[in-house]
Amino acid sequence: MKKIINKPTDVVTEMIDGMVAINGDLVHRVEGFDIIARNTEKTGKVGIVSGGGSGHEPTHAGFVGEGMLSAAVCGAVFTSPTPDQIIEAIKEADEGAGVFLVIKNYSGDIMNFEMAQEMAEMEGIEVQSVVVDDDIAVEDSLYTQGRRGVAGTIFVHKILGDAARNGQSLSEIKELADRLVPTIHTVGLALTGATVPEVGKPGFVLPDDEIEFGIGIHGEPGYRREKMQPSKMLAEELVNKLVTSFEPKEGEEYALLVNGMGATPLMELYIFANDVVNLLADKQITIRYKKLGNYMTSIDMAGLSLTLMKCEDAQWVEALEAPVITPAW
Amino acid sequence: MKKIINKPTDVVTEMIDGMVAINGDLVHRVEGFDIIARNTEKTGKVGIVSGGGSGHEPTHAGFVGEGMLSAAVCGAVFTSPTPDQIIEAIKEADEGAGVFLVIKNYSGDIMNFEMAQEMAEMEGIEVQSVVVDDDIAVEDSLYTQGRRGVAGTIFVHKILGDAARNGQSLSEIKELADRLVPTIHTVGLALTGATVPEVGKPGFVLPDDEIEFGIGIHGEPGYRREKMQPSKMLAEELVNKLVTSFEPKEGEEYALLVNGMGATPLMELYIFANDVVNLLADKQITIRYKKLGNYMTSIDMAGLSLTLMKCEDAQWVEALEAPVITPAW
Repeated sequence: MKKIINKPTDVVTEMIDGMVAINGDLVHRVEGFDIIARNTEKTGKVGIVSGGGSGHEPTHAGFVGEGMLSAAVCGAVFTSPTPDQIIEAIKEADEGAGVFLVIKNYSGDIMNFEMAQEMAEMEGIEVQSVVVDDDIAVEDSLYTQGRRGVAGTIFVHKILGDAARNGQSLSEIKELADRLVPTIHTVGLALTGATVPEVGKPGFVLPDDEIEFGIGIHGEPGYRREKMQPSKMLAEELVNKLVTSFEPKEGEEYALLVNGMGATPLMELYIFANDVVNLLADKQITIRYKKLGNYMTSIDMAGLSLTLMKCEDAQWVEALEAPVITPAW
Repeated sequence: MKKIINKPTDVVTEMIDGMVAINGDLVHRVEGFDIIARNTEKTGKVGIVSGGGSGHEPTHAGFVGEGMLSAAVCGAVFTSPTPDQIIEAIKEADEGAGVFLVIKNYSGDIMNFEMAQEMAEMEGIEVQSVVVDDDIAVEDSLYTQGRRGVAGTIFVHKILGDAARNGQSLSEIKELADRLVPTIHTVGLALTGATVPEVGKPGFVLPDDEIEFGIGIHGEPGYRREKMQPSKMLAEELVNKLVTSFEPKEGEEYALLVNGMGATPLMELYIFANDVVNLLADKQITIRYKKLGNYMTSIDMAGLSLTLMKCEDAQWVEALEAPVITPAW
């Protein structure tokens, strides 16, 4: 393992310190906790909190800021944050109008976020939440009952963050989230495994000429291994899988996210995106919003994921396009 | 070689198509050329053009847009663009007030950009240029007389782009560029080599427990190989080298760029940045502006570079902070 780190046990705390050292104008660490919170003034609006295991940078802390998340809780690498950390993030995010939690669908996250939600309610803070389960690659998985929550989560952060900024109430945001989450589908592929610093070796190894479709962001197994193939064929596999899951109808509009897994060069993401956009045009699917980059990563995994969101409401597109001030959107 | 591409000979053209497919609201391809130009209206200001070999994405095309570059020319991977492409970018960028070229110091780039500059002048377009040579790792190098131009170039794009937007004349921008370039110093390190798609194997191979200091963005040799070591020690090496090159005095202010080489996870960049910021604080060096991300990459190389710019003019900091509308800043 060759990584630019100090002690493997210190990666999360030092990463948070580094993020604040670079982006101190936008965010701060909640003293004594692994929480990144925004520096904006409290204006009595709903707070949006997300979080989960570290290793998916810039998710989640990179999306903290004006117009998006109020705070993000950073667990150990690939490990849910503990309830005592989450409750502190809820308190930090509370501006008097309640706090909304965006939880990715992993058993540990759900257990700990729900526990924190109960504790917060006992302290008089109104809390609502949604569980994001956009990964259509597999039903149930390691660490998951049902589908995993992956890159599509950042669309949830963006759209709910915009709603909160616009003064929507906690119950309105809950209703929006419940409509939004089922419209987001993602599927990914991996060229290499990711190495957790404290483990020191990749979670799985793919031969030099193989890829795996449907891999999770912690290296959870996908649905098929195949020989490496041209970008066009990879795009075809993922596009077909997504399109089938939606059964698109005329007049519908979609948002697109091409997400790198951490070690994938932009060159490859753009080549793949070109193939995807051409395939979607062939299928006469209208893409209203497009985004590309390394957003929901798996440490040093090479690979990517493709997300489509059915824009059931024109406001969702406006919310995706609205400017925000965060380290990473 | 496991890469998400189609034919290795098509990577640049498909990458440009993908960039336009994703960012078509901001930029377009100049028909028939490997040039990305911005969609903004021409307002009679100086045009800023940069470019060079591909493989450094998001550099240069990702910095095309309002407030930054007018156009970027994309050569083959790690290969200078040809004069016929550069002249076309100059014509595209010309709004009647002349065009300024930002050239990285590589022999091929200098020869081709200078030839295009002469051709443009013969066609009646006033052109000025600057050669960026911020890499203090080595004097002379493969492909270079004198120092190489690396990540610090993006500060030049940003500050000159802001000057052009503010209506500065071509001669004012030339004067600014000549003051600016010597204040920018960079030094990098690599954990792995980069694989050019048409070559199919890494340009160099480092053993599993070694790193190389001072490596170039095309894998040009650095100044020393050593055993892998903690981030703090890597930071100490690069910070000391940079600080020595400036001999900082009290009252001076600096801008900082922590740049990933393409396959380096954000987690590692932030941990390294934390060490760098602490070391600079120990040395009582004031950092007025900070930026971190994968900006001047070397395809799939793992590694990073550190840039310091001495802010001799407070307006330079303002120019770095000024909002722009580009795919990647």
